Amino acid sequence: MRLEINREDPMPVYLQMANRIKEQILSGILPEGFVLPPERKMADDHHVSRTTVIKAYEELKALGLVMSRVGQGTVVTERKLPATNGSEPLIFPMSWYPLFDKKITNVSDTVSEIMYIGNQGNMISLAAGIGDPSLYPVDELREIQNELPIDSDHLNLCPVEGYYPLRKSIAQLMGSRNLSVTAKETMIVTGSMQGIDFAARTFLSPGDAVIVEEPTFLQAIQCFRATGARIIGIPMDEEGIRLDILEAQLARYKPKLIYTIPNFHNPTGVSMSMERRMGLLKLAYHFQVPILEDDPYGDIAFDQEKLTPLKALDPYGYVIYLSTLSKVLFPGLRIGWVVAPEPVMKKFVLLKQITDLHVNTDSQILINRYLRKGLYEPHLKKILPIYKKKRDVAIKVLNEEKGLVHFEPPEGGFYLWCRIPYSVPQKKLLALCADQGMIYTPGTVFFPQESDGEHWLRLNYTYETIERLTEGLNLLIKAIKKLSVQNEPSDKETGVRPIV
Amino acid sequence: MRLEINREDPMPVYLQMANRIKEQILSGILPEGFVLPPERKMADDHHVSRTTVIKAYEELKALGLVMSRVGQGTVVTERKLPATNGSEPLIFPMSWYPLFDKKITNVSDTVSEIMYIGNQGNMISLAAGIGDPSLYPVDELREIQNELPIDSDHLNLCPVEGYYPLRKSIAQLMGSRNLSVTAKETMIVTGSMQGIDFAARTFLSPGDAVIVEEPTFLQAIQCFRATGARIIGIPMDEEGIRLDILEAQLARYKPKLIYTIPNFHNPTGVSMSMERRMGLLKLAYHFQVPILEDDPYGDIAFDQEKLTPLKALDPYGYVIYLSTLSKVLFPGLRIGWVVAPEPVMKKFVLLKQITDLHVNTDSQILINRYLRKGLYEPHLKKILPIYKKKRDVAIKVLNEEKGLVHFEPPEGGFYLWCRIPYSVPQKKLLALCADQGMIYTPGTVFFPQESDGEHWLRLNYTYETIERLTEGLNLLIKAIKKLSVQNEPSDKETGVRPIV
Repeated sequence: MRLEINREDPMPVYLQMANRIKEQILSGILPEGFVLPPERKMADDHHVSRTTVIKAYEELKALGLVMSRVGQGTVVTERKLPATNGSEPLIFPMSWYPLFDKKITNVSDTVSEIMYIGNQGNMISLAAGIGDPSLYPVDELREIQNELPIDSDHLNLCPVEGYYPLRKSIAQLMGSRNLSVTAKETMIVTGSMQGIDFAARTFLSPGDAVIVEEPTFLQAIQCFRATGARIIGIPMDEEGIRLDILEAQLARYKPKLIYTIPNFHNPTGVSMSMERRMGLLKLAYHFQVPILEDDPYGDIAFDQEKLTPLKALDPYGYVIYLSTLSKVLFPGLRIGWVVAPEPVMKKFVLLKQITDLHVNTDSQILINRYLRKGLYEPHLKKILPIYKKKRDVAIKVLNEEKGLVHFEPPEGGFYLWCRIPYSVPQKKLLALCADQGMIYTPGTVFFPQESDGEHWLRLNYTYETIERLTEGLNLLIKAIKKLSVQNEPSDKETGVRPIV
Repeated sequence: MRLEINREDPMPVYLQMANRIKEQILSGILPEGFVLPPERKMADDHHVSRTTVIKAYEELKALGLVMSRVGQGTVVTERKLPATNGSEPLIFPMSWYPLFDKKITNVSDTVSEIMYIGNQGNMISLAAGIGDPSLYPVDELREIQNELPIDSDHLNLCPVEGYYPLRKSIAQLMGSRNLSVTAKETMIVTGSMQGIDFAARTFLSPGDAVIVEEPTFLQAIQCFRATGARIIGIPMDEEGIRLDILEAQLARYKPKLIYTIPNFHNPTGVSMSMERRMGLLKLAYHFQVPILEDDPYGDIAFDQEKLTPLKALDPYGYVIYLSTLSKVLFPGLRIGWVVAPEPVMKKFVLLKQITDLHVNTDSQILINRYLRKGLYEPHLKKILPIYKKKRDVAIKVLNEEKGLVHFEPPEGGFYLWCRIPYSVPQKKLLALCADQGMIYTPGTVFFPQESDGEHWLRLNYTYETIERLTEGLNLLIKAIKKLSVQNEPSDKETGVRPIV
């Protein structure tokens, strides 16, 4: 009997053993009456102390899954079905794991782990996906709450598609992104993430193919994975998604959906060139594949005009457009929106109705007033120079160590996408940094096949103060240098480098 | 060629025809070059005017789906794949319908239709699922907003499981329902509906069976249907779900989940007897099936102590418990919660994380303060007598017409579940009432097989003022009487009556 033990896992080894065995019993791999290996043998097989095995077995006894039987040792309990006659039936713990839908069990909970580390005390977080909380327009919102004191309308249900005046304000806002839409074509959702989930549920069945840029937004990968779809990653270059590779894959996999983040892409910071946008649309038309355009960062443009969304370049209604207030304003009210063709919108409304009915009414009223007062663009003008400065600081600090960390300076958005020396192991770096009091996002989580991101990491430069940002980056540099001298460069170093 | 035309459908007949044909073309049933029937024949076949058919064909031409060809008539356009060389490609409208996941297309959007009618002007709504907005604790909330002016914490991300102090307050609240839980066992979700959705996604794959009471909460039916699961309805009697029938179905279908609303059930108002609760748990243990307990109405108890949830009677952790603030306080902030065993909670947290991240932070902080100030129970004591009075008024008005409408007076909750004469057709009654300015919820929507609810309707007595409630009920009575004399009682009248 061989149990997979992960010694880097914070969970105690005896618990890991107990859980592995528990899963095998509950899933029926270990039948009733099965005799577990003697403690000493189990200990030797797994290079653990006998006490560890004893504790693991005790754990299983406590759950009623195994019992000691004289002359036999530890055996899997027999599951007599409880008698339904009066006599008190013997009741077993619920076997949850076999009940879970396979699709869900495919989804890893990397995020929560990282979020968890990030929440530790005074940890410097360059792993965040948000802006600087000290810039949230608190005073404006307080003023609005005084003008619009909460009343029963704020607390009552609102239409599934969203509070109509807010839909109008959002449609107006889209004008500033060269996209002219009506309120009716706009639907309010709980962060643009919910739009990704709705699209996944509307289009994807197990076995379907969905195209994503590689790397891409972690939650999108997980959301698509949760439908049981095959995720086809298309590499990017400095102009965005590679159309030559995309065309081949479209022909091959007949995907149901193309997911893209054309503006200040997460995590790479790349913006798709206009030529690439037109080419992408042309391919979508040719292969009749809808495009799910995710645009959280389009307004965070430091040096140029706002970029034109694919949706604005698509007269044929192939594009479903998503955006959010979480990046320019704040994430806590969870307000995002969808602009979609009518047949798609109908499905999204249906999904909203059967999952959470509508977005928080009070916040929709509050935000609508904020937008109506014309406070959005001034706020944007206020934060952009600050984020630009933070970006410049980050670039400067990282460049002080020539050739240690490679990246393309982004012209907007929240992130630096960095390649680290091949001799530096991701897990060790993450652990060492966390130990030093700083956290970043490992590149692995942005790839459908995690291993692909081993030598990359994402740094957020908007969340922390300039001082802490600088301090965090210096901690990172120190950690990388320490690990790269410890580990001889492997021959990978001379191998092919991943695109981006 | 036979097209299904629904003359009660508000959509114009020519559009219905165009859509039917469009679907058949897009789904490939009508191949390229297929010649549509001549307009006159089409008109005769469907008993519509020739102009109607012409308009339908024009519609399809406008979409580029059909074209007129000399000597042939109207033919389905050939879909030459657009050339990828420089020349401007011919682009077709996206064929959305074939792309939609089958599971989603199974879900009807009855609710939105009813909601839509309900929103018409000054319509008296006995279709609502909420309490009286004039009772929302507006003043208390304003006071709290003054004590806790909005700041960046209100606008920032919060943990996926919910704002920890609120989880503590909710755990405390559960004490008043004889359920002792810790904050860690409690998770905040977007209305208890999101808990149903998460359970559906965690446990149900296409073809799986899920048990529901019959009738039951409409959105639960739709949510389960959206997973592709088979929904097995178990009849109820005055003590709740029928265990004899349940046991047989458990053995037969090996369901993944049992969904129940034990307290002041929606729509029937029935509360499960203690004996029935113990019996249900015993069956769940015996067949190792988890129970999803939905408890939105447990606190709306007019005459007795609060009922003890199944969760509190289940020492073995088979029950996943859902509740919400939408019925006692207000629905607009969308705050509900889940109490679940750890393995289940982990899956729910994962789903929250990949769908909408967390519940509105500002509202969680606001509500936590409301609960901490001990305002919940006093508010409950304030609203219960009012709702009880409204219930009594509704009963009185309906009983004035002996034997016209049959119902069991509920001891709590929001609804009267009424049987109408078999001679009254549901659709006609709904239309006549809407025409007279009142709306109710037809019984059909609460049954997995809609036809089963034909002779039932759900009346909400909490939402409207006593005056409008009375007026609405009188309109209903008039409408029923009018239709029952128009229609001869069918022999169904002598047949078996549905249980409940």
